[in-house]
Amino acid sequence: MRGAVSDTGPQEGRKRVGPKPVVRVAILTVSDGVSEGWREDTSGDRIESWARERGYEIAARQVVPDEVDGIVSALRAWADHGAADLAVTTGGTGIAERDVTPEATAAVLERTIPGIAEWIRASGLDKTPYAALGRAAAGIRARTLIVNLPGSPAGVADGLEVLSRVVDHAVELLRGEACHGQGPEGV
Amino acid sequence: MRGAVSDTGPQEGRKRVGPKPVVRVAILTVSDGVSEGWREDTSGDRIESWARERGYEIAARQVVPDEVDGIVSALRAWADHGAADLAVTTGGTGIAERDVTPEATAAVLERTIPGIAEWIRASGLDKTPYAALGRAAAGIRARTLIVNLPGSPAGVADGLEVLSRVVDHAVELLRGEACHGQGPEGV
Amino acid sequence: MRGAVSDTGPQEGRKRVGPKPVVRVAILTVSDGVSEGWREDTSGDRIESWARERGYEIAARQVVPDEVDGIVSALRAWADHGAADLAVTTGGTGIAERDVTPEATAAVLERTIPGIAEWIRASGLDKTPYAALGRAAAGIRARTLIVNLPGSPAGVADGLEVLSRVVDHAVELLRGEACHGQGPEGV
Repeated sequence: MRGAVSDTGPQEGRKRVGPKPVVRVAILTVSDGVSEGWREDTSGDRIESWARERGYEIAARQVVPDEVDGIVSALRAWADHGAADLAVTTGGTGIAERDVTPEATAAVLERTIPGIAEWIRASGLDKTPYAALGRAAAGIRARTLIVNLPGSPAGVADGLEVLSRVVDHAVELLRGEACHGQGPEGV
Repeated sequence: MRGAVSDTGPQEGRKRVGPKPVVRVAILTVSDGVSEGWREDTSGDRIESWARERGYEIAARQVVPDEVDGIVSALRAWADHGAADLAVTTGGTGIAERDVTPEATAAVLERTIPGIAEWIRASGLDKTPYAALGRAAAGIRARTLIVNLPGSPAGVADGLEVLSRVVDHAVELLRGEACHGQGPEGV
Repeated sequence: MRGAVSDTGPQEGRKRVGPKPVVRVAILTVSDGVSEGWREDTSGDRIESWARERGYEIAARQVVPDEVDGIVSALRAWADHGAADLAVTTGGTGIAERDVTPEATAAVLERTIPGIAEWIRASGLDKTPYAALGRAAAGIRARTLIVNLPGSPAGVADGLEVLSRVVDHAVELLRGEACHGQGPEGV
């Protein structure tokens, strides 16, 4: 069973030709206050700015209250219609009674990526011990990378810093443009 | 949907007035040896001392063997009767055949808090690689924060150091006394 | 219920007498390319060399494509027949469409050990941010320690470094040769 041919092969044919396709980002603000109109969506705005600065396209932007159903519907629609390469949520990842974003996200994920959330939490711990209470999840549904970020501006900043390091490569892998398991960075 | 009013609002009314309520701690020692009477409950004692030094109230203290049923019953009772703000277990988080505390805990948690256990493990790795074998879990049932600590005195010490950094804030959030998602520490 | 006898007891009798038993390692390469014969199994070879250098016995070595069924069958057979103390997989832990090793592994694990995968990811982050995309899992079925490693040579090297630190002790615990919860390293 163990081959001895070479380290490359059919997958060579998969290599991308032409300009890099644009990453389409959908942003979901999960917040009772924003959805009721008495709180500004600072964190959603921050994610949108981050995406635009990176040359990404804003595929969708939506606000829902801290409830499972609305979160599930938005994420499922974006992933299942192939509308976004990256869906970022902000808010609802803490431990207050209404914080249910991680549970809603888990319900839509087909495969989890624990390392993204671990990294965001570990980065946050350099600044505040309360980063340990962040319950954010991340993973994949269809070909969409879904990542929860905290609701606070500081937490969003930490999370975007981590995302900046992995998004382009992750989207290439999800689109089948990069060869999985090959090269020094293979995981 | 996106509001523009202000960063504060109805939640202002939630702010705590008067003296800080006491944190009620329940301690569960999970150990065949302690429950059979031939081993001292050093780790349970250590948790109790830690709690008293911090001015917490000992709401309950119990010893059970390394079996799922007893662990589940104790944790469920404390959380569902609102008897404790924090339930700490010690023991049964390793990989020996009888170590089932994480499984029993997962069975009662309504929401998990992976970051607490991640942080305890990462702290432990500074001292021993075997900290990586600790399978402790943490999370929430009703309004009770449930945290597994290892059985060893060194592991308990590491865990309590982490808990000291987050418990007061976590309990405030679970009681609805702190505003979730607000302030620089929001998660 | 809380005993006051001593910190040792019946478990003293469990202490191992005689030469240290050999650790039996089973290696599972998960790779479409290797199983189709056009790619070399560099990572599987590397794991085998590591095991031999440590004086371990190679109990089995197998190659399967990136599909859940084959992974599940191999791991289940090794664990349920007591054929291996340690089963190491390589490959299929990333986020490409065909990467399903963590899901297949989760399906066979009776108890998870999150700390091993967390540690491997954290070590990998020193070298590449893409380590965060590694979805490797680890845990126990019957008395077999099962650990996913990435498919890339660099990822395997990081993982083996972590494994070297914990395998001997873990196998002793799983065999019931070490006293769980005792000693400064108890978890």
